[in-house]
Amino acid sequence: MTQQMPADESRLDRGKRVLSEIDGEAGERVVSALADIAPDFARYLIEFPFGDIYSRPGLDYRAREIATIAGLTALGNAAPQLKVHIEAGLNVGLTRDEIVEIIMQMAVYAGFPAALNGLFAAKEVFAHRDTVAGREAC
Amino acid sequence: MTQQMPADESRLDRGKRVLSEIDGEAGERVVSALADIAPDFARYLIEFPFGDIYSRPGLDYRAREIATIAGLTALGNAAPQLKVHIEAGLNVGLTRDEIVEIIMQMAVYAGFPAALNGLFAAKEVFAHRDTVAGREAC
Amino acid sequence: MTQQMPADESRLDRGKRVLSEIDGEAGERVVSALADIAPDFARYLIEFPFGDIYSRPGLDYRAREIATIAGLTALGNAAPQLKVHIEAGLNVGLTRDEIVEIIMQMAVYAGFPAALNGLFAAKEVFAHRDTVAGREAC
Amino acid sequence: MTQQMPADESRLDRGKRVLSEIDGEAGERVVSALADIAPDFARYLIEFPFGDIYSRPGLDYRAREIATIAGLTALGNAAPQLKVHIEAGLNVGLTRDEIVEIIMQMAVYAGFPAALNGLFAAKEVFAHRDTVAGREAC
Amino acid sequence: MTQQMPADESRLDRGKRVLSEIDGEAGERVVSALADIAPDFARYLIEFPFGDIYSRPGLDYRAREIATIAGLTALGNAAPQLKVHIEAGLNVGLTRDEIVEIIMQMAVYAGFPAALNGLFAAKEVFAHRDTVAGREAC
Amino acid sequence: MTQQMPADESRLDRGKRVLSEIDGEAGERVVSALADIAPDFARYLIEFPFGDIYSRPGLDYRAREIATIAGLTALGNAAPQLKVHIEAGLNVGLTRDEIVEIIMQMAVYAGFPAALNGLFAAKEVFAHRDTVAGREAC
Repeated sequence: MTQQMPADESRLDRGKRVLSEIDGEAGERVVSALADIAPDFARYLIEFPFGDIYSRPGLDYRAREIATIAGLTALGNAAPQLKVHIEAGLNVGLTRDEIVEIIMQMAVYAGFPAALNGLFAAKEVFAHRDTVAGREAC
Repeated sequence: MTQQMPADESRLDRGKRVLSEIDGEAGERVVSALADIAPDFARYLIEFPFGDIYSRPGLDYRAREIATIAGLTALGNAAPQLKVHIEAGLNVGLTRDEIVEIIMQMAVYAGFPAALNGLFAAKEVFAHRDTVAGREAC
Repeated sequence: MTQQMPADESRLDRGKRVLSEIDGEAGERVVSALADIAPDFARYLIEFPFGDIYSRPGLDYRAREIATIAGLTALGNAAPQLKVHIEAGLNVGLTRDEIVEIIMQMAVYAGFPAALNGLFAAKEVFAHRDTVAGREAC
Repeated sequence: MTQQMPADESRLDRGKRVLSEIDGEAGERVVSALADIAPDFARYLIEFPFGDIYSRPGLDYRAREIATIAGLTALGNAAPQLKVHIEAGLNVGLTRDEIVEIIMQMAVYAGFPAALNGLFAAKEVFAHRDTVAGREAC
Repeated sequence: MTQQMPADESRLDRGKRVLSEIDGEAGERVVSALADIAPDFARYLIEFPFGDIYSRPGLDYRAREIATIAGLTALGNAAPQLKVHIEAGLNVGLTRDEIVEIIMQMAVYAGFPAALNGLFAAKEVFAHRDTVAGREAC
Repeated sequence: MTQQMPADESRLDRGKRVLSEIDGEAGERVVSALADIAPDFARYLIEFPFGDIYSRPGLDYRAREIATIAGLTALGNAAPQLKVHIEAGLNVGLTRDEIVEIIMQMAVYAGFPAALNGLFAAKEVFAHRDTVAGREAC
């Protein structure tokens, strides 16, 4: 998975494109939830993380999501964002087993509670995906 | 880079092998520093993180070091261990630029100070490597 | 807003007065919730933070609540206390927009997830205030 | 309370025995919740914390649970694990009052919000115990 | 102190101007230290925190530095950045006593160690300023 | 070791007595270091942690120091305070081996880096004690 960046794309446009490639609908939900309280922050959230950072050529989305899932699991106080990025990891090609490996590994660096809470977040995301897939299959 | 695990290797032997493949001398230095104060902890450090976790087949060393560098940068209170794993990342094939990308990305999740302190840790490790390489080249 | 301190007020009395000036009912709810499990802790909570610290003359309540909202947003693991102090901030004269500014700024120092979770806490507090105001207007 | 360790017990068996002595059913519930997502992690959770650490002779269970309750309260981002270890503390002989003392003391080191959230976790655990005891008394 | 923003200033130019108004030389030193390892990150550091956030009209520099000093003291793992912002606080008009008040207050929310380490950071910054002033007076 | 509390001792006097019983000279050094920057904070540090909390009858000093060493190791960002309380633990009767056990156990809850950094802090404190004892033996 490579990231191509049209030469004269604005940071906001590039961020929107990258956010949609990585986070899909989950990213959009966060952005709309900010609309009435901090619309400028929604723009910053698109521009800096996605327009500036994720769109950089030096690391592919897969590696970036490994880093993000690891970082958020280790921090241990950002459950909603961890769930969004477990989704994102699946979107950019990580398997469920790989995501579980990354989270388990954080037990070494941030302790068993951080890893356990990360695994239960993953369990929720996977179960939700199965429910949606089940509904769509009917 | 794949991880092969001899069928009847003990956790301790496997951990020693993996630690040496990943961390090289830096890992051994930590283990000796523990010898007089907590020798059993040195054994646990080899057995659980390296014998159990890093040796698992589901994720290669490169991906594991991306996760560890990200997690330690995000935590922001484990500078000595971050430096060991920046070394480890280089040992298992990450480039300096890739390591810099991972650390920069943590600014999004753990703030600019965590990323800055991570980048300065990387700068130290890279400079140390250059000094050693310079000396060996003479 | 200045803090006047009667000369011979006890720490507990001063703390109660300051807690009521700043936190209003939210502070009292915390104190009652402690009554059956740790009544002495309720007293410490009034005496040290409010009787000793908030009542000091060197900084007005407005500046103190800017500091507290910033600190609690950055810590990211104290949602109930952050909500109490978003209320407190409004009580001592911060506007909703100012509170949103303070929380947004913490994205720089503690990461986007900490700021996002802080903004959603503010959104809840503001919505609750509007509901109560709506009810009282009827 | 002393910890006796049969000479040729495996880490897993020892861990299961210790987990059951300390955590009772709460430990088992965590282990089963991991069964479908990360069964190996359930094994590590039994082997390292309980088979290796809690079973060491140098500190009794009572002292170990004081340490764990203090550590989890201070971290402030591991509410489910804190509740399990408040239960565990009661199981190994700590009184409710002693647990409240430990948590209160963390206000000094990790701030009042960490202590408050720890006290409310204890309140929930104690109330749950009373409900169960009340049901069993009927 | 108000923030005026020329209509067609780029984020980078605006960030440079604001960084220089707030952090003075300390900010420039950070930016140069990044030049050889992560020059793009130096740009992001100017653009997002200073070009986007600090330059927003809703909160003056004084209030922003109260928030930043509080947040960094509470986090407790960003000593170099805390020192830069204690300097910045003085630059934008906070008195030494006000900075001490902000840091002391964080004992309530992040514990006494965080506040103590913050106060010792302030002590270093104040002493350094006095030395420089003493030298310049000769 | 029991804590006796003269009936009409002030919080400050009680705190001074308890601080001296627990921390010995290390506590006094912290208090003097605050004298020129935040003398009131030195008083709060004596009054609340030592006058209010450590002097409470529900838990002896030994249990309180187990909790503090565990909490500070887990937080991982308060090395100076952890060293003071490793000293304090020895002062109130914990053995070096017990302190090592407490710190090792935190690997489970806060990760291996937190435990490693705690062990190296203990190693420094123990070595310093041996040096002083060696000098005094001559």
